[in-house]
Amino acid sequence: MKCLILAAGSGSRLRRRADSKPLFPLLGVPLIERTIRSAQAAGADDFVVITGHRAQPLRAFLHRLSGRIGAPIATVHNARWREAGNGVSVSAAEGKIEEPFLLLMADHLFDPELPRRLMEAGAPENGLRLAVDGNRTNPLVDLEDVTRVRREGERIVEIGKGLEWYDGFDTGLFLATPALFEALREAQAEGDTTLSGGVRRLAARGKALALDVTGGFWCDLDDEAALKKAEAVLLQRAGGKERDGPVARWINRPLSIRLSRWLARLPVTPNQISLLSFLVSLLAAGLFMQEGYPALAAGGVLAQLASIIDGCDGEIARLKYLGSDYGGWLDAVLDRYADALLLFGLTWHQLHMGGGDAVLAAGFLAIVGSFMVSYTADKYDGLMREKGGGRFRIGRDVRVFVLFLGALSNQVTAVLTLIAAVMNLETLRRLVVCRG
Amino acid sequence: MKCLILAAGSGSRLRRRADSKPLFPLLGVPLIERTIRSAQAAGADDFVVITGHRAQPLRAFLHRLSGRIGAPIATVHNARWREAGNGVSVSAAEGKIEEPFLLLMADHLFDPELPRRLMEAGAPENGLRLAVDGNRTNPLVDLEDVTRVRREGERIVEIGKGLEWYDGFDTGLFLATPALFEALREAQAEGDTTLSGGVRRLAARGKALALDVTGGFWCDLDDEAALKKAEAVLLQRAGGKERDGPVARWINRPLSIRLSRWLARLPVTPNQISLLSFLVSLLAAGLFMQEGYPALAAGGVLAQLASIIDGCDGEIARLKYLGSDYGGWLDAVLDRYADALLLFGLTWHQLHMGGGDAVLAAGFLAIVGSFMVSYTADKYDGLMREKGGGRFRIGRDVRVFVLFLGALSNQVTAVLTLIAAVMNLETLRRLVVCRG
Repeated sequence: MKCLILAAGSGSRLRRRADSKPLFPLLGVPLIERTIRSAQAAGADDFVVITGHRAQPLRAFLHRLSGRIGAPIATVHNARWREAGNGVSVSAAEGKIEEPFLLLMADHLFDPELPRRLMEAGAPENGLRLAVDGNRTNPLVDLEDVTRVRREGERIVEIGKGLEWYDGFDTGLFLATPALFEALREAQAEGDTTLSGGVRRLAARGKALALDVTGGFWCDLDDEAALKKAEAVLLQRAGGKERDGPVARWINRPLSIRLSRWLARLPVTPNQISLLSFLVSLLAAGLFMQEGYPALAAGGVLAQLASIIDGCDGEIARLKYLGSDYGGWLDAVLDRYADALLLFGLTWHQLHMGGGDAVLAAGFLAIVGSFMVSYTADKYDGLMREKGGGRFRIGRDVRVFVLFLGALSNQVTAVLTLIAAVMNLETLRRLVVCRG
Repeated sequence: MKCLILAAGSGSRLRRRADSKPLFPLLGVPLIERTIRSAQAAGADDFVVITGHRAQPLRAFLHRLSGRIGAPIATVHNARWREAGNGVSVSAAEGKIEEPFLLLMADHLFDPELPRRLMEAGAPENGLRLAVDGNRTNPLVDLEDVTRVRREGERIVEIGKGLEWYDGFDTGLFLATPALFEALREAQAEGDTTLSGGVRRLAARGKALALDVTGGFWCDLDDEAALKKAEAVLLQRAGGKERDGPVARWINRPLSIRLSRWLARLPVTPNQISLLSFLVSLLAAGLFMQEGYPALAAGGVLAQLASIIDGCDGEIARLKYLGSDYGGWLDAVLDRYADALLLFGLTWHQLHMGGGDAVLAAGFLAIVGSFMVSYTADKYDGLMREKGGGRFRIGRDVRVFVLFLGALSNQVTAVLTLIAAVMNLETLRRLVVCRG
């Protein structure tokens, strides 16, 4: 599927923040890259970008991006970007696209699910389909600036910025056929150079249909306020994993998201963050191995800090499209080492504080049990998914938190014994459940 | 693919060992079950068994087997099994099979690869194809009793027990068409009731072709000597895994195969053997935790014994068609526990013999490293398989053997340090290699 992206405008309202709006880095990733990556995730594999303002650096960036994402990105310059409406930008691609295509705006964020649903629904012959948001109180929408839509059934009957009677917003996500080019020529002949002008001509023939995407995520990044809101949504989406345990969800994520917001601006990779988290755990274990309560408590705080940092690698990977199979694996391996080191540090501490064989045994069983719960997780989770049942997980978030509380309260033996008992019993339970 | 199996004969030469030859348990599994399971592995999914001698218990057994393997098994009785040749048994199925079919003997063992290759080669229209072994010095063949074949190209020109000039053996594996039934009727009309008689008629019309399977495993179980040889081959095939490390290959397997030969006759499951091996490891760890050299040495011997027993679960699973996904997983989980317990036992021993923090650290790192090598194995092996490169494995066999030697030589600290160093460096190497 071809994808046409409008990136000619100057984004005057964000001029203070960036010279080129498509290249404006939102959480470390230029807006145009976000648009192209989201379209690619939805199934687009061949891109045409209409340039205008600051075309040269944009072209250079897209050339490099094309190599990174492994898909062709052509550019077409719209020399009239300054004086004419955005319909002229679409017209610049006329003759280059002969089949139905996705039409997107470089300065809109959206969930890949939305263009995917557009492609599923399909465009009417010689017409187009526009994703329309029916939530007229969507907090991400700037009512002053948004293009409004009035529908009858799935047909669009009116579209424009000033509409008084409307039942939805133009999301800027279209599935169009080349008939749009002809409609735009008609509109331009009558002096209307906007994209909405072309859509209006198709609508008059009953050829402009809507796809209702109410509830789906999209937003138009027109000003500072919109950027702030969009950042918050992106961070939320990058953090909110279904597999999060209670500690991750209520304590670690809210903090790791704040940290990721800052980390996203730096050139650090997720793997470097995984390593950082591991080093903090190593430091925590080293503190545990010192005698006395202050070192123990400090180690506990560092262990919990490492657990929070550990959330950032995945968040940055999702925010910056840097996820990799290797990264996930490295994170898991380092987490296993960190788990074992922390428990060993506590065991060492308690042995040197006069703990005897019982501490040694509890520490050993805690280390082995934690390992076994991770070792059996893939198989167990897979089985539970198959059965459609809920998964019982004592995740790393809870384990480290218990350990943190144990260190703070100087209850090392109790914590080791608790972790040893719960983890090994859980492993035993899995052996029985999977036998089924 | 339908599969016709001749199981009518009395197997007079094995009468002393079993009342019914098809039900004779070879390493715990009746011959007829081995034949049916092998044919099923090759692709057959619908079975017809010709009964004769002791038909009632055979029918009852096949009824239960059908449920276990999830494929229909019909039986047809050949009332003339005592006085007539085996061609009459084939004729008993006339009218029940309308398409090409596999024709097998209940008392032949064979690699599923052989019928698979027969089906690939296909039978000539209105004829048959016989798998022929061209190795005239095959030690598994009883020259007195085997049916001999003479070929010209792929055509069979003569077949019979008494042939003086021959270049191969009838393996008893056929891919036949219903034309065989007609040929058998012609032969029987002339007084020849053998299967070879029918084959000879087809051969005269150029309709009996050979598939050369020289080097493939098959054997006819006619007497005690053949049974002994077949047992040895089956045990070898059940044990010989490509993934075996050096200790497994040269020390553990030769012993575990002997043990499996005995275990196969008992009603023990592979999972029970996995548990037994684990319990012996647990006992070994318990001995390690006692003070003094004798307990240490005894623990070392038990650990190595557990490692040998650990080979039997897979062997019995393969020998008795009892393999399961869960069984492999249970074995892996118990092995991880056993590894950790043995290393912990040694650490405990040495700490109580006056070892200090260095022993504690070495023991901890040995436990963690051994775990990590197993934890990273799937990913690493998968990657190495993809790259087609050789895998570097320090398997459990080597780890336990080193531990056994360390216990015998009372060099516990050295062994813990060695295992700690090698296992953690190997994990680090894998992290680097997989990144590559």
